[in-house]
Amino acid sequence: MANDNAAAPHSAAGERVGVRAQTAPGRWDGVAVMPYKQTAEAPFQDVSRQLLFADPNLACEWRYFEVDEGGYSTLERHAHVHAVMIHRGHGRCLVGETISDVAQGDLVFIPPMTWHQFRANRGDCLGFLCVVNAARDRPQLPTADDLAELRKDERIADFIRTGGE
Amino acid sequence: MANDNAAAPHSAAGERVGVRAQTAPGRWDGVAVMPYKQTAEAPFQDVSRQLLFADPNLACEWRYFEVDEGGYSTLERHAHVHAVMIHRGHGRCLVGETISDVAQGDLVFIPPMTWHQFRANRGDCLGFLCVVNAARDRPQLPTADDLAELRKDERIADFIRTGGE
Repeated sequence: MANDNAAAPHSAAGERVGVRAQTAPGRWDGVAVMPYKQTAEAPFQDVSRQLLFADPNLACEWRYFEVDEGGYSTLERHAHVHAVMIHRGHGRCLVGETISDVAQGDLVFIPPMTWHQFRANRGDCLGFLCVVNAARDRPQLPTADDLAELRKDERIADFIRTGGE
Repeated sequence: MANDNAAAPHSAAGERVGVRAQTAPGRWDGVAVMPYKQTAEAPFQDVSRQLLFADPNLACEWRYFEVDEGGYSTLERHAHVHAVMIHRGHGRCLVGETISDVAQGDLVFIPPMTWHQFRANRGDCLGFLCVVNAARDRPQLPTADDLAELRKDERIADFIRTGGE
């Protein structure tokens, strides 16, 4: 009963058939670790991205993002929704006006046009799975007016990171 | 910075906004544990099902299945694909003609019309996340001829469970 992934075929769409083992926490056999963003305009810090599943038959993409200690994902919003599960580590997230502690196994749903940002706790990383519709709009960054509005809430003002820190 | 999930609103689609904590391994705040199948014809043993995310904007559904010790999912195939990540425990899975050991964190891709089945190891459970297209066909069960074909491979004959055991 050998686990013969090495000989695993690929689907028509290119997805490798069968099992891809987790070789280390947040690392998988045959899954490349990529930059979080292609665009320099979007502020973020110490985040990596991996595409776990993107088969066209799936209608969605299943990604893995890992925020290192002190890092944060981009503060953004978009019309598409995010379905998130924390895979490893501990951190906090902003969803709309709510800041929550999150840990391995927790679920996070981000509705349309809702400001959101993930941060890793001190001395820890935050790795999370994120499923999105394959057909989706581009994220929007906050304008100066958006930031002024968000910062009216002291807790949010203290939490958010926009690259100027 | 309270985690005020209790006060979390719902999206238009009904998905609860923000964080739903994992309250125990494979159990989440506000997520109901449901029967695995509605139909008695499909053979399976000791499997539960939970719907983690099913927002219409997502185009897919993110489910969690848990197979208890000695249990097995239904041996089936379908035109839609399965994107799977093992969430807890240890077991084995059949994907096409390959039987693989799987453990927490491993990825499994099941292409269209490919026979597959998950089994928990002795003394362990097997909990896995499974993302599917929201628009999908009904699973097909093996006919007597299909089973005869599958059982030509001794390893597969030994592995598969069809309710007659």
